Amino acid sequence: MTASLLIRNVRPNAGPALDILIENGRISRMAKDIAAPAGVAVEDGRGEIAIPGLVEAHAHLDKSLWGLPWYVNEVGPKLLDKIDNERMNKRRLDLDPARQSARQTVQSSMMGSTHTRSHVDVDTDHGLWGVEGIMKTRDEYADIMDIELVAFPQSGLLRRPGTLELMHEAMKAGCEIVGGLDPCAIDRDPKGHLDAVFGLCQTYGRPLDIHLHEPGEMGLFSLDLIIERTRALGMKGKVTVSHAFCLGTAPELVEPVIPQLAALDIAIMTTAPARNTAPAVKKLLDAGIRVCSGSDGIRDTWGPYGNADMVERAMFIGLRNNFRRDDEVELGLHVCTTGGAQVMEIADYGLAEGKSADLVIMPGQSLTDIVVTRSPKRRVIKRGKIVARDGVSVRTAP
Amino acid sequence: MTASLLIRNVRPNAGPALDILIENGRISRMAKDIAAPAGVAVEDGRGEIAIPGLVEAHAHLDKSLWGLPWYVNEVGPKLLDKIDNERMNKRRLDLDPARQSARQTVQSSMMGSTHTRSHVDVDTDHGLWGVEGIMKTRDEYADIMDIELVAFPQSGLLRRPGTLELMHEAMKAGCEIVGGLDPCAIDRDPKGHLDAVFGLCQTYGRPLDIHLHEPGEMGLFSLDLIIERTRALGMKGKVTVSHAFCLGTAPELVEPVIPQLAALDIAIMTTAPARNTAPAVKKLLDAGIRVCSGSDGIRDTWGPYGNADMVERAMFIGLRNNFRRDDEVELGLHVCTTGGAQVMEIADYGLAEGKSADLVIMPGQSLTDIVVTRSPKRRVIKRGKIVARDGVSVRTAP
Ligand SMILES: [Zn+2]
Ligand SMILES: [Zn+2]
Repeated sequence: MTASLLIRNVRPNAGPALDILIENGRISRMAKDIAAPAGVAVEDGRGEIAIPGLVEAHAHLDKSLWGLPWYVNEVGPKLLDKIDNERMNKRRLDLDPARQSARQTVQSSMMGSTHTRSHVDVDTDHGLWGVEGIMKTRDEYADIMDIELVAFPQSGLLRRPGTLELMHEAMKAGCEIVGGLDPCAIDRDPKGHLDAVFGLCQTYGRPLDIHLHEPGEMGLFSLDLIIERTRALGMKGKVTVSHAFCLGTAPELVEPVIPQLAALDIAIMTTAPARNTAPAVKKLLDAGIRVCSGSDGIRDTWGPYGNADMVERAMFIGLRNNFRRDDEVELGLHVCTTGGAQVMEIADYGLAEGKSADLVIMPGQSLTDIVVTRSPKRRVIKRGKIVARDGVSVRTAP
Repeated sequence: MTASLLIRNVRPNAGPALDILIENGRISRMAKDIAAPAGVAVEDGRGEIAIPGLVEAHAHLDKSLWGLPWYVNEVGPKLLDKIDNERMNKRRLDLDPARQSARQTVQSSMMGSTHTRSHVDVDTDHGLWGVEGIMKTRDEYADIMDIELVAFPQSGLLRRPGTLELMHEAMKAGCEIVGGLDPCAIDRDPKGHLDAVFGLCQTYGRPLDIHLHEPGEMGLFSLDLIIERTRALGMKGKVTVSHAFCLGTAPELVEPVIPQLAALDIAIMTTAPARNTAPAVKKLLDAGIRVCSGSDGIRDTWGPYGNADMVERAMFIGLRNNFRRDDEVELGLHVCTTGGAQVMEIADYGLAEGKSADLVIMPGQSLTDIVVTRSPKRRVIKRGKIVARDGVSVRTAP
């Protein structure tokens, strides 16, 4: 757990080639031609690029079908179709959250992620099955991934009595973040829903990360209620809005909202979806807003896509935002690394002396090249230990 | 060139496992337990899935930067910025069309494409440099790829005098298809532009494949002029509109156009862009319209994305069109295989007896699994010959 390693000849963030000395799991020196301390293993960086560990800031580790027999998706078109289809089939599909979260964690680590924020379903059909499952994975795979948990009322909070009580249980059990979901569209009681989730935040002194898929004016209304409560409750810097599709609607509606998000340091998570309106990443960053990204669900009953590759996600951000210039494409990589660390408040993150030695080494000519080429030839280092090499993890999933 | 091969134990289009016997470059039998004819090599299909060769129906083989030193993109935001930046830098960047088209052809073949329709720049700065370059590649790499050429006035047809004359030269030199570009937005003379390109079609008895990026009502106006000429000139089934972003605008504007496209058998090419309005693929297919797709430019001065992988493109189509059900995701694969063959009028295409033995064998549990997993472990067969295996081509690019 307190690994030491000397990496020779790597280019941090595509800059000049250096050696990186890692001692006791932390970067202790970055310089040219560092002499190897006695007994410290040496890894040849081959002139490849080192980036800080990728940050998977929005996952659903409890419910991927990864590694299960192929699931033929025949789900209906509505959001509630997908929610109900999933909840009602979890047992039948043998969607054990402990096993499935372990599988996704290994996959995610292989692709270069070193930190994950995972939402986890809390509902009256399954109670804390998901919370307990991911917590098991968090313990057992702590050597390859730091996992943070968001208690998530996927099936609605008020429309299914008993769920709020379970949310309390989930927070008491150790979830770090309070989750929420579409206060208008799902619970049909935006005041009730938001008062409840912000109340949980107050009770447990925890941040909020709320799913907001609601489009257009409805979403902007919910967002306005979120802003109002963030301000009133002194939760500046403690709220993340995930998806925020409504921020991709008409500029004249969105522009007045941006400075309010910035003033309250409300972070935005976007997967950069091709099929929806979506927040304009550069506009948010230019306003000083923290922006992170994530895979969201991968290969689940909602849809078959996804491989937990946050480098590919950086490409999706670029494609969605029409980033063509190198300085633009690099913004996508920023969102999937440092942006995620800012949202998750990872204090010791980054390629700098004194920081935790969480990094990925990948071949490439430039940061943009890394994003568009998405080489599988990655070396992933977690707290100084090489945990994956060329798509093979040191850990096996169950 | 007249290869024979027996492939044992593959699942055509994810159906039951069969053997496929290829004789003289064609599929001669598909059945269980075919006895190997004397002297015919046997390939173990390992129970993997066989799909017909991928069809790259919209490429720009002449101008990828593939294999050149990293190009730092600092281009301006407008379409004309990108057009001018490219034309003025072709020589400086050493963008030799023969070499670059060979490189992209090998890459594309490795990913499973067996047929390519490539647009090729025709302009007064470079004349037929591009046409001659791709024609060289078409000859030299005929064993791995069938290439069809579209003479493409990338820098405008009327706004740069001398271009129309060069378009005539390109058609005489052997381009199979007439190209065109944004009759309003680039040439600012839609009647003049369209009369010119349709005139070329009439003179040489060739089909049209016109780039139409124009958004909203402007694009629908240009499309209406294209429809009008297709009807008046009896060119039913001989026109492709590439991109057609305007078909992604308001349904009440688009819906009256769909039956007209269907009646005149006008085909649509979409890359399923994440950043633009785009045609709804399922709506087009349901109306009986031929739909194909392509990589468009890959790693060029326009932007860094792309790897010529038409399986990945099928995924992009799914993501853009919100295809989640298996039967929907498969539509994306259809567009990247059979749809492309329909547009390119490839008569002997498909996994059936008598057809040319152009196919890809990939591991997967289902067609949707193929699309979302995008395994690099592909075996590509062109006219009965294995031309690529696990990302290694039988041909080397210059
Ligand atoms: Zn989510
Ligand atoms: Zn094009």
